[in-house]
Amino acid sequence: MSFRERVAEAAEERESNIVLALDFPYEKPENRQTLYKRAENIIDIVNPYVCAVKFNHHLILPLGIFNGVQKLLEKAHEKELPTIMDCKVNDIGSTNHVIAEYYYEAGFDALIANPFVGWEEGLKPVFEAAKNRNKGVILLAYMSHKGAGEGYGQIVVDAKSGHRTPQYIVFARKALEWGADGVVVGATYPEKIKEVYNVLAGKIPIYSPGVGVQGGEIESALKAGASYLIVGRAITLSENPAETAKRIRDIALSVK
Amino acid sequence: MSFRERVAEAAEERESNIVLALDFPYEKPENRQTLYKRAENIIDIVNPYVCAVKFNHHLILPLGIFNGVQKLLEKAHEKELPTIMDCKVNDIGSTNHVIAEYYYEAGFDALIANPFVGWEEGLKPVFEAAKNRNKGVILLAYMSHKGAGEGYGQIVVDAKSGHRTPQYIVFARKALEWGADGVVVGATYPEKIKEVYNVLAGKIPIYSPGVGVQGGEIESALKAGASYLIVGRAITLSENPAETAKRIRDIALSVK
Repeated sequence: MSFRERVAEAAEERESNIVLALDFPYEKPENRQTLYKRAENIIDIVNPYVCAVKFNHHLILPLGIFNGVQKLLEKAHEKELPTIMDCKVNDIGSTNHVIAEYYYEAGFDALIANPFVGWEEGLKPVFEAAKNRNKGVILLAYMSHKGAGEGYGQIVVDAKSGHRTPQYIVFARKALEWGADGVVVGATYPEKIKEVYNVLAGKIPIYSPGVGVQGGEIESALKAGASYLIVGRAITLSENPAETAKRIRDIALSVK
Repeated sequence: MSFRERVAEAAEERESNIVLALDFPYEKPENRQTLYKRAENIIDIVNPYVCAVKFNHHLILPLGIFNGVQKLLEKAHEKELPTIMDCKVNDIGSTNHVIAEYYYEAGFDALIANPFVGWEEGLKPVFEAAKNRNKGVILLAYMSHKGAGEGYGQIVVDAKSGHRTPQYIVFARKALEWGADGVVVGATYPEKIKEVYNVLAGKIPIYSPGVGVQGGEIESALKAGASYLIVGRAITLSENPAETAKRIRDIALSVK
């Protein structure tokens, strides 16, 4: 089964289109074990309400991939949840290749990459590594933070048509051209979700972060065309993560 | 002493403007100890010919930061060499903050960041973390790979002037505005080094990767305005890394 099919299956089985982002605040390195336990506990109690688990440097840096994080990936896989590494990879091809090999080898099912770095000696080796290992690549199109407009929202002269085009539309077209397995657009910008959705024409699912702490709304993101909502701190920092995850899942369910 | 001053001092003392990039090919996780030993050995024998050491995910991912890499940072510092983490950080601000705290806490003296992510809730927290800890931030302006033109070389409509402007010029201006401690421009594009140099007007040093394996030439990069050359695989994969580093250092010296 492909990465896309695995996420779709998990979403159907659990009736949830919520991707859990295992994000935590900075912890002193000596508290690594506590951080590991918190992450493990969140997977244990939240897994019935989510369809995938996304990791970022919040856990990679303190725990390391071949120590703590790999065990968390195994835990997610035991619960039949696909895993995503949100490394926003954007280096030269030879480095991207090494990065992709380590993350995929550790057990990640998909990586998030920044299309800004380009194809030749850029993301081509990441897509090749993914193909070789039957893994996924998700591309950024528009991020969820305030300053996103500076880069993702800038107007560029399209290299092919010569027309003035928003950067995120250029990225959405690259996602189609390169065969991406997902595209990220922030829930804080539902009008961008709509525009990207129109370019993708249902061929690639949209993953939308920024619901909750960042202020994005579930309903507007889903109605604009997001397939999956990425939710992190609203769940991980909640007093009752399972209840919060279930509540967000239920709201999302009611929209569909 | 600031990061910039530390690099400049090391460069003067060793008469070298070469930054060693500790890049290695992918290794199976079970060979981590061998990888650590190789990296340690390279620092031991190459340190007299370089002015700083740059790390990337080639070592971070297999070794972890609070395990192997931190010991390598200590080794570099024993040799009075500043250290740079080439993480090309490009996430939302809260994540960038966590990333910066972990890397700086581990002992890195500077991080490389991608200005494409923007300032508000983007790189602002990285610059703040750097300021609080007296560390450095280096920004990408133009990378060294073939596909770099796709993003870094694209023409954008400048948000302030409304003029059509190359992306790398927009980035060079942000480096001045944000107070970056260095700017990266690939040695494979000496004409871009020259253009970025003209924008920076000597206020921020240019770090130039891509000499050697990637085909960039030492002389053209330095004559175009690069202050430092970043050299990785040409040294780390050489049969005699110390001799190669010395030879590259000597060629660079003869240009100045």
